[in-house]
Amino acid sequence: METESPTAEKTSAIKAKEAKAFGTEAAEAPLHQLSIKRRNPTPHDVEIEILYCGVCHSDLHTVRNEWHGTIYPCVPGHEIVGRVVSVGSHVSKFKAGDLAAVGCLVDSCRECQYCKDDLEQYCEKGNIQTYNSPDKYLSTQTYGGYSESIVVDEAFVLRVPENLDLAATAPLLCAGITTYSPLKHWKVGPGKKVGVVGLGGLGHMGVKLAKAMGAEVIVFTTSPSKVEDAKRLGADDVALSKDEQQMQRYAGKLHFVLDAVSAQHDINAYLNLLRVDGSLALVGAPEHPLPVAAFSLIPSRRSFAGSMIGGIAETQEMLDFCGKHNIVSDIEMINIGQINEAYDRLLKGGVKYRFVIDMASLKK
Amino acid sequence: METESPTAEKTSAIKAKEAKAFGTEAAEAPLHQLSIKRRNPTPHDVEIEILYCGVCHSDLHTVRNEWHGTIYPCVPGHEIVGRVVSVGSHVSKFKAGDLAAVGCLVDSCRECQYCKDDLEQYCEKGNIQTYNSPDKYLSTQTYGGYSESIVVDEAFVLRVPENLDLAATAPLLCAGITTYSPLKHWKVGPGKKVGVVGLGGLGHMGVKLAKAMGAEVIVFTTSPSKVEDAKRLGADDVALSKDEQQMQRYAGKLHFVLDAVSAQHDINAYLNLLRVDGSLALVGAPEHPLPVAAFSLIPSRRSFAGSMIGGIAETQEMLDFCGKHNIVSDIEMINIGQINEAYDRLLKGGVKYRFVIDMASLKK
Repeated sequence: METESPTAEKTSAIKAKEAKAFGTEAAEAPLHQLSIKRRNPTPHDVEIEILYCGVCHSDLHTVRNEWHGTIYPCVPGHEIVGRVVSVGSHVSKFKAGDLAAVGCLVDSCRECQYCKDDLEQYCEKGNIQTYNSPDKYLSTQTYGGYSESIVVDEAFVLRVPENLDLAATAPLLCAGITTYSPLKHWKVGPGKKVGVVGLGGLGHMGVKLAKAMGAEVIVFTTSPSKVEDAKRLGADDVALSKDEQQMQRYAGKLHFVLDAVSAQHDINAYLNLLRVDGSLALVGAPEHPLPVAAFSLIPSRRSFAGSMIGGIAETQEMLDFCGKHNIVSDIEMINIGQINEAYDRLLKGGVKYRFVIDMASLKK
Repeated sequence: METESPTAEKTSAIKAKEAKAFGTEAAEAPLHQLSIKRRNPTPHDVEIEILYCGVCHSDLHTVRNEWHGTIYPCVPGHEIVGRVVSVGSHVSKFKAGDLAAVGCLVDSCRECQYCKDDLEQYCEKGNIQTYNSPDKYLSTQTYGGYSESIVVDEAFVLRVPENLDLAATAPLLCAGITTYSPLKHWKVGPGKKVGVVGLGGLGHMGVKLAKAMGAEVIVFTTSPSKVEDAKRLGADDVALSKDEQQMQRYAGKLHFVLDAVSAQHDINAYLNLLRVDGSLALVGAPEHPLPVAAFSLIPSRRSFAGSMIGGIAETQEMLDFCGKHNIVSDIEMINIGQINEAYDRLLKGGVKYRFVIDMASLKK
């Protein structure tokens, strides 16, 4: 990942102010309140008061250094919604008082072919992520949304539909776009049969979005206890993945499978559900390699793919789509003081389906 | 796989005659001469005198029952070229004296969506393969091209370009279409960088075809001894896959990778060569599952795919393309009596690049 950009102004000329945040100095330490610096808005910046921040499994992976490369102190959070406090002189998309959102990215090189193609998530030089990336302006890493405010270039700030519940909108910024982008890329829509594997933070958004796109949606889960909830979320059918007969019913029948499981699982069982030319896209990230049988792919020209969040234009498209279809995440609201306990519960599973931090609790 | 078709005439009314062939009655036994039955041509049939038959690794897998399900006696061979001896009364595409070819398929259901889409190789009801499939007409399995003649419905008989060396054309019927089809499907052409992994019977065809399609072709091989030959075949560059630096040179640079290795190998090393949205298509079939790291796919939206031969229309397109570009296989000609020795050499590797049996040797 690049640490410099030709347009960076990483000098002491950039003024900054203190902001309250929640983070940690070490992988083993619990999160606690600390103070970070936020730059004063430059001409293209939007300063946002953070109202809600979703809790993504990546937050936990990063603060605990499970993906390695975490720089401390670490302030996670990339499902951010809030209200614009001030804008730089060249900002045209936002004004003070507007709702605004920030997702996983706060900048990219903006020059490579991928950036030009609105695929900033795949920026060739390495994009700047909302937390744990080198800050282009200050001599620190970037700090995420577990804080009272954030300052972001307007090119990476999203507009929020006014009709949605604001707290429940926050998870759209990661869980929403992570599932929307592959559903769109692999052309999910009317006449398509789509499988969603795993009903958690990502999977439950996948069900809502695929259904709103007009597809027939089948949820695959290991938990009989999730059958009713999957149907409530919009699934046309639910198959228990441990039941060979239920799996067999969909063998060779699905156009696309969205696999949102980050634990080890038998990927061949799901590849075998695909029709000829079908794709399975992994959006969860199991730690260990998944064994793939050649005969799961070759006899039906299937593809085993992966997908990562989405570009900025597509994230806006997703938010507008959710506004139009009245889609938000199912959430459980917490105060920032409950975050360590929330992480413990995240590991155990059973959250329905996303924790969102009420950031007003940081001000107290 | 279906054993019946609504149009089948599997009755004693179908007359058949004896034909010389080479095959075996058991997995452990060597191939030897035997006698099989070929039906008298029905109104839609083409009777072909087989002049040359390529030796595919699948032949060996099948006669030795390595994929299980082999029915004995087994007569392999699905890279067949020859001359038309007689045609049924309704045949319009061929007449006696024409060159003709038969590949891996001799029939399919012709009614499912895949068959209607010219994807008979993925026929939903199960296609009829040239050998070891249930014969639609006689109460036996189908017998392949290690024989003096074959009778095939004209819908599954291919025209052979007159300008090509006939013996060297035979391997196009499997090795040619198996590599041509994925190269076309994944839109290989001018401006595309394509990797070919493994330089054997399939790989050497992949190089010739990708080059003729206008792509920049990089061969990846474990053998320094193959570097010169890869360039002679048309490769723009060759990278030794054991050399980390040579691999690194192409990291994230390739639009498509054709993987023709059927031994176990580290698939992640080749997935990492792909650009964003790039695909790797496996056409070799390693026996054991290949471990795939989630991070080989997710951060660049890559696909790990498989592909199997091609449909009949596409096989004809491939033959016409080869005629136009003067492409044939590099072959080593053998007599049918050398087949068991050829199998031993096939297992050891180093064939350049395909054995073809001169079927005149069966008549002696």
